[in-house]
Amino acid sequence: MTSFSEKLKSAIKRTGGCLCVGLDVDLVKLPVGLSKDAKGALEFCKAIIESTKDLAAAYKPNMAFFESLGAEGMAVLEKLRGAIPVDAILVMDAKRGDIGNTSQAYAKAFYENLKADSVTLSPYMGKDSIEPFLDYPGTCSFVLCLTSNPSSADFQLQTLQNGHKLYEWVAQTAAGWGKGKKGEVGLVVGATQTQYIKDLRQLVPDTVFLVPGVGTQGGDLKDVLETGRSKNGYGILVNVSRQVLYASSGSDFASAARREAQKLVDEMKPYFK
Amino acid sequence: MTSFSEKLKSAIKRTGGCLCVGLDVDLVKLPVGLSKDAKGALEFCKAIIESTKDLAAAYKPNMAFFESLGAEGMAVLEKLRGAIPVDAILVMDAKRGDIGNTSQAYAKAFYENLKADSVTLSPYMGKDSIEPFLDYPGTCSFVLCLTSNPSSADFQLQTLQNGHKLYEWVAQTAAGWGKGKKGEVGLVVGATQTQYIKDLRQLVPDTVFLVPGVGTQGGDLKDVLETGRSKNGYGILVNVSRQVLYASSGSDFASAARREAQKLVDEMKPYFK
Repeated sequence: MTSFSEKLKSAIKRTGGCLCVGLDVDLVKLPVGLSKDAKGALEFCKAIIESTKDLAAAYKPNMAFFESLGAEGMAVLEKLRGAIPVDAILVMDAKRGDIGNTSQAYAKAFYENLKADSVTLSPYMGKDSIEPFLDYPGTCSFVLCLTSNPSSADFQLQTLQNGHKLYEWVAQTAAGWGKGKKGEVGLVVGATQTQYIKDLRQLVPDTVFLVPGVGTQGGDLKDVLETGRSKNGYGILVNVSRQVLYASSGSDFASAARREAQKLVDEMKPYFK
Repeated sequence: MTSFSEKLKSAIKRTGGCLCVGLDVDLVKLPVGLSKDAKGALEFCKAIIESTKDLAAAYKPNMAFFESLGAEGMAVLEKLRGAIPVDAILVMDAKRGDIGNTSQAYAKAFYENLKADSVTLSPYMGKDSIEPFLDYPGTCSFVLCLTSNPSSADFQLQTLQNGHKLYEWVAQTAAGWGKGKKGEVGLVVGATQTQYIKDLRQLVPDTVFLVPGVGTQGGDLKDVLETGRSKNGYGILVNVSRQVLYASSGSDFASAARREAQKLVDEMKPYFK
């Protein structure tokens, strides 16, 4: 079976960039002409995927927005699965993490039912909360390391008695959990934190980074690509959500999304030659 | 509107104990006679609730098990809402936490759509990931502090340069987030960690604790109740899942669950006189 890292490298070569389109479907922001309900959300996502499928190495549905639509939202997610190209990476943004038997149930929900390639997870409960996800070959479980929001400083930037910041300790520890497992461990590192990415790369040179926070949140794409790529050059996905999804609120939303995606991939291309 | 703490105190007085029945619905473990699907899961939960409703101060559905059933599982959860008595506390065990606009969507899913009283959240992303949940009056957002699983030691027991263990820092910091907000902040503290609960109570004497890990996981109920109650005596919920749910695998599962719940409440009663 192809490893996650190999699938990612192929997707980057196919599309020219490491663009992950985040599907943060906010009903209030749906373009005119689409109904503000689960049906509209499905149509919207399908149109976005259709117009960007040669540009996006990955898609990242944000579970919160689907959960907020109740059972219908989950049905939308299941239908969406079929719309995502098989050679694109599907990252489920869920930020889960629980005791063993519960994590097993989540792993089943994402890796078996939805056939995702990847899930985001929270590190707070430690190794045994992540391990059930690592039993699935071809997958990558992205553990939160240094997030893009301002309050990431509350705990992630605290210094431990061993001299490391908490996020560095999480990075090293979590990277170790993946050794000898069927699935890989990756890390979520916010694009707003580029002053830390270079040092982080020295700690974990081979680990795949999922980098949210470019665009609306203010992270700089060039800074991220200069410092954030892995040793082999392909261990990175940069997520952009709102800048692509809501590029236009008119009926031209899909072509506007494509234009934004194209711009991003054009900026990325020089780094993946 | 009644505050969460007041509703909890009433529920404890009504039932005689601080028992929270965890609805961890594992299809494999469903008793004979129930179909191993969403329909069976709904029947099972309804029967458990019906037979324990005068004993359980709270019910805690575990999102993972419902999510692993896909859209059908979410529909079960919506139907279950109506089966839970209005004077019992509904805790959604979700362990969510994300950037602001995403946390808002989760808060809507749990506090508006499902009309839960409470949700469990992960602290790793800090204050702005929790704040959207605190806009709902009458609710309590339980932040993970010291969890019941062995790997809780990986990060939660790390000592910070300020001399505090990470879980102590989380406790103090998160308790502060609730000040002046519409919703309360509570803490998740595992029953397997009783050697730490006494000190933790000195740091946050008034904060409500949700304590999982009694029963199958090995935590001792007496130890928890001796040391874990809040200053007013009522700021605690002790969760038991498997010991109650799967007390019998036969058709008498509901009455067997009641017997286990009754035993637990009998042990709790002396502490709430």
